[in-house]
Amino acid sequence: MPDAVDLIRAKRNGGQLSAADIRWLIDSYTSGAIADEQMSALLMAIYFNGLDDDELQVWTDAMISSGERLDLSGLSAPTADKHSTGGVGDKVSLILAPLVASCGAAVPQLSGRGLGHTGGTLDKLESIPGWRATLSNAEILAVLRSAGCVICAAGDGLAPADRKLYALRDVTGTVESIPLIASSIMSKKIAEGTGSLVLDVKVGSGAFMPDLTSARQLAQTMVGLGNAHGVRTSALLTRMDEPLGRAVGNAVEVEEAVATLRGGGPDDLVAVTLALASEMLRLAGISTDPAAALADGRALEAYRAMIAAQGGDPDAPLPTARHTTVVTAETAGWITGMDARAVGVAAWRLGAGRARKEDPVSPAAGIICLVKPGEQVEAGQPVLELRADDPARFERATEALQGAISIGLEQPEPADPVLERISETVAGLELAS
Amino acid sequence: MPDAVDLIRAKRNGGQLSAADIRWLIDSYTSGAIADEQMSALLMAIYFNGLDDDELQVWTDAMISSGERLDLSGLSAPTADKHSTGGVGDKVSLILAPLVASCGAAVPQLSGRGLGHTGGTLDKLESIPGWRATLSNAEILAVLRSAGCVICAAGDGLAPADRKLYALRDVTGTVESIPLIASSIMSKKIAEGTGSLVLDVKVGSGAFMPDLTSARQLAQTMVGLGNAHGVRTSALLTRMDEPLGRAVGNAVEVEEAVATLRGGGPDDLVAVTLALASEMLRLAGISTDPAAALADGRALEAYRAMIAAQGGDPDAPLPTARHTTVVTAETAGWITGMDARAVGVAAWRLGAGRARKEDPVSPAAGIICLVKPGEQVEAGQPVLELRADDPARFERATEALQGAISIGLEQPEPADPVLERISETVAGLELAS
Repeated sequence: MPDAVDLIRAKRNGGQLSAADIRWLIDSYTSGAIADEQMSALLMAIYFNGLDDDELQVWTDAMISSGERLDLSGLSAPTADKHSTGGVGDKVSLILAPLVASCGAAVPQLSGRGLGHTGGTLDKLESIPGWRATLSNAEILAVLRSAGCVICAAGDGLAPADRKLYALRDVTGTVESIPLIASSIMSKKIAEGTGSLVLDVKVGSGAFMPDLTSARQLAQTMVGLGNAHGVRTSALLTRMDEPLGRAVGNAVEVEEAVATLRGGGPDDLVAVTLALASEMLRLAGISTDPAAALADGRALEAYRAMIAAQGGDPDAPLPTARHTTVVTAETAGWITGMDARAVGVAAWRLGAGRARKEDPVSPAAGIICLVKPGEQVEAGQPVLELRADDPARFERATEALQGAISIGLEQPEPADPVLERISETVAGLELAS
Repeated sequence: MPDAVDLIRAKRNGGQLSAADIRWLIDSYTSGAIADEQMSALLMAIYFNGLDDDELQVWTDAMISSGERLDLSGLSAPTADKHSTGGVGDKVSLILAPLVASCGAAVPQLSGRGLGHTGGTLDKLESIPGWRATLSNAEILAVLRSAGCVICAAGDGLAPADRKLYALRDVTGTVESIPLIASSIMSKKIAEGTGSLVLDVKVGSGAFMPDLTSARQLAQTMVGLGNAHGVRTSALLTRMDEPLGRAVGNAVEVEEAVATLRGGGPDDLVAVTLALASEMLRLAGISTDPAAALADGRALEAYRAMIAAQGGDPDAPLPTARHTTVVTAETAGWITGMDARAVGVAAWRLGAGRARKEDPVSPAAGIICLVKPGEQVEAGQPVLELRADDPARFERATEALQGAISIGLEQPEPADPVLERISETVAGLELAS
């Protein structure tokens, strides 16, 4: 039997762990035979020395094998899913899942909750009265059959090793490691049973990966892992320097998603959603044009069916905040930047996010970007509208926004929100067209 | 209040921790407010990114402050102590403490037990019937006053943070870090209250530090720490490529130490002991010649007084092993090498050492080097005599000795066992004279 200390020291010294060693480590940690303090030391050694391709394959595989895999083979439609590494104002899933479903794919989107300055898809949908995030496997299949898509919490049975490892990484400063991030995301997505997967890897101040180089490396690693496990996988790198769309929060993001499904919505949100939809449909082998499905109401219909199938009332009024305040422009000019992280932190402090896993979120709290980069303002004109249930929260939220809005004398060049595509064919690099 | 995850990430990213942060970390870990899995991740980050001089000073100081400090100021003699980083056949303390005491210093030697292939001074002395390793602080002072020296276990009250950290490092692959080793050793030695301290840093196959560069770095780090805390500290780097002396074990090492105190003993053991004694006396400001005190029986007298003061009978017969076997020379020639680590591992497997902290050791088990490097053998001549209570242990012990003895056609050059002295004046480097 391997010895945990020997394996920690081997990785610490830059060695390669064997497949048997890695399976023993993951299995023993999941069962409790390896202590948290040993696994956290190993994770820190992996932070410094990485995992090579062979190690990462086995590591991910062992995490998948620690639990059940959903069996979606009984569905008649090809399956396609999307995963985002998390951004500010990122309500894409709410539009994308029904949009792709309305084009003929089945979309099994198992999602998470927000922690820190990025919101969680489940938190957003829970602002809809009656909507349930937690479904049994049978219910997941039933909603997929009736509505074509489902957005729900990943059950405890999927990749339990990842659940335990993620909680440990969160408290031991070992989150920011590309192989650990990639194996965490991909083990859950592969266990979920989707046939194809598009990764939305966010790049910029509001993203987990602030620079293009590390975002690209993470995307390539995940694309390689997915395809090696038989899931057709590709990735788009998309900009997260400013909030996506105009709404940041929970109910306010649901409203903006519905407006987009009705054929409106902000340009950047529509562009990212259509790019991801096209990529999902391409991988699923479906040639329907998603732009048409968004324009003619088919996507909205799938959304309403999905919400209703999960107990929600798509026509119910959403919670609204009791208090609002505004942040105004200090000078006149063109908005040249709006720091996504600062806006995310401010929304979090207003109550839209949670400090600890067990905290509730405020469905009504959030921020509306009244003006966005590329638009013009007068001095004193309101730029951001802050919403909260408790006006005492405005002070610290406003503090987070100090220096977040840049105003210049010239109109900035419009920037394409989609930066690159990492293709599944060779996990190589192509420029987005 | 600082946040443990923020501090782990700061060290992981190569940052410097503030004095307040380090004190908070050590205090919170000692009190249990910081969990083992967070501390082990931090220790691994320190393994990779180190601690700079300022951080190390505070880290060590916080470990000292976690417990009590012995007050030796009531003694009339100047105090001097020695610490060895651990070797094979290293029974120097048993000779050195009474030798230096007989020259006029008080020697408060708080020691540890062996783990792994290197033996522990307390384990060796416990082979003397009646001898007690555990003394109260009042008893320590009484033995020092009556015998001039004491060798005993460090009490639970000294540097409890180090006790807890060392146990954690042992199971998390974070032992081999120079700042962590240096702060662990020095926090205990400074808390012990000695006025001067000589470090015996072993270099070679049987040592913790196999190469001269890292041994020198460890020595310089510890010498700097000691002097910064007001303890006159210097270090000798000494060879640990072959066992020190001829005996490796517990009772067998006590026998060899007593033979040396009677004016005999192997040359290398005498040379290392006298070099360390001269250095201790120099730091303590005493000009007595230790060679004379060894020759005329004064050191032996101090040894007998110390053993008796701790309940031991210096005239009692020592335990002997029921079974012996020998390893013979494969060819005729000169012994050119005898791998210290292999001999240490073999003695450990014979029962002289322990696999787990809670295991007992066999007082009688061990190895006698019948021939040493620089001496000549015939083919088939016995080189090592193995002793054990249980003959079933011979097989795995003999396995450890495969290839451990090198035999050549030419007599090797004699090598000085003392390699370098690291002086306390500028923590600089001098060649040993």
